[in-house]
Amino acid sequence: MTGPPRRGRRPGAPDTRAAILAAARARFAEHGFASTSVRSIAADAGVDPALVHHYFGTKDDLFVAALELPVDPRERLAGVIAEGPDGAGERMLRVFLSVWDDPDLRLPLLGLARSVLDPSGQRLLRDGFVPAVLHPVGVALGIDRPEVRMPLVASQVIGLILTRYLLEVEPIASMPADDVVAVYGPTIQRYLTGPLPSA
Amino acid sequence: MTGPPRRGRRPGAPDTRAAILAAARARFAEHGFASTSVRSIAADAGVDPALVHHYFGTKDDLFVAALELPVDPRERLAGVIAEGPDGAGERMLRVFLSVWDDPDLRLPLLGLARSVLDPSGQRLLRDGFVPAVLHPVGVALGIDRPEVRMPLVASQVIGLILTRYLLEVEPIASMPADDVVAVYGPTIQRYLTGPLPSA
Repeated sequence: MTGPPRRGRRPGAPDTRAAILAAARARFAEHGFASTSVRSIAADAGVDPALVHHYFGTKDDLFVAALELPVDPRERLAGVIAEGPDGAGERMLRVFLSVWDDPDLRLPLLGLARSVLDPSGQRLLRDGFVPAVLHPVGVALGIDRPEVRMPLVASQVIGLILTRYLLEVEPIASMPADDVVAVYGPTIQRYLTGPLPSA
Repeated sequence: MTGPPRRGRRPGAPDTRAAILAAARARFAEHGFASTSVRSIAADAGVDPALVHHYFGTKDDLFVAALELPVDPRERLAGVIAEGPDGAGERMLRVFLSVWDDPDLRLPLLGLARSVLDPSGQRLLRDGFVPAVLHPVGVALGIDRPEVRMPLVASQVIGLILTRYLLEVEPIASMPADDVVAVYGPTIQRYLTGPLPSA
């Protein structure tokens, strides 16, 4: 996990990068995404805020870097977003499966999934992943009420992660990717573009 | 948690009941539901198998007792089953919410939900809850391919538990019960009676 492209610049002292990431993880886990400023992370790490932006880009980018995901979900979902909301449910699932069905990527992701059991991991997901990753995808897709629809999508995707990869409940654990898409695609699509209870 | 009605008999020595439950929990967690016999549990607890049946009923009943759930999901779902598969998705969700939205019941259930993070808890859910509770509900409902459909239902219900009660992701965490039913009812119903990929 290296953050966004560094546009040919030197990567900087590994210690500084590591100190910034550690400070970011601690801040995001304790205070949540919205209440954490890049300035406060820089102060904790003993560096100038400009250096944080230089190494990691925006606060969203820094958050994704702090999660140490094996892939950047925003990059993977760029194609889904570009084609708009029609059929986005199926396309989102195919991206999801291309990552999670890869054993090299699944292992570190399962580690993150397990962190939902401790309170700081819960805060990282709820107050970080939702506003920094999930919500922007919904906004970029151009759907109405992304603040409702994207959490609904998450509720089915989380359940799929648990049954297919963590609990390994059959027949979901061994289901061919095409069948997973056939079963769950319409659910995700309905959450993205179907009727919602009035606000 | 006291197991099935004891039909006026004395509850038996608390130590014996506790020893049987402890032996059952250890066996089910280590060997799974299918590979565990009432005889082996009785042997571990140092009692006659007949006594296990006398106190706890069938192996399914013993398993549910060993989970120490604050309610027996089979009793709660009896009404859903009796009315058949039409509209069962919505009715199932209403039962689910009547239990999980009750703070007194939610707390012990969340404890169980957290156990998905350790391997023995995973085995209890996958190799115990699925065959002893989930599958019989599908069979009793009279749906086709319950061995596929009930795990699909579980995958959405587990995701709802995590987002609404454990992670408390908004707006799902504060969503009125009627809205939860409106959003998730069609999903559960489609998993129960909708099209499936061919076997």
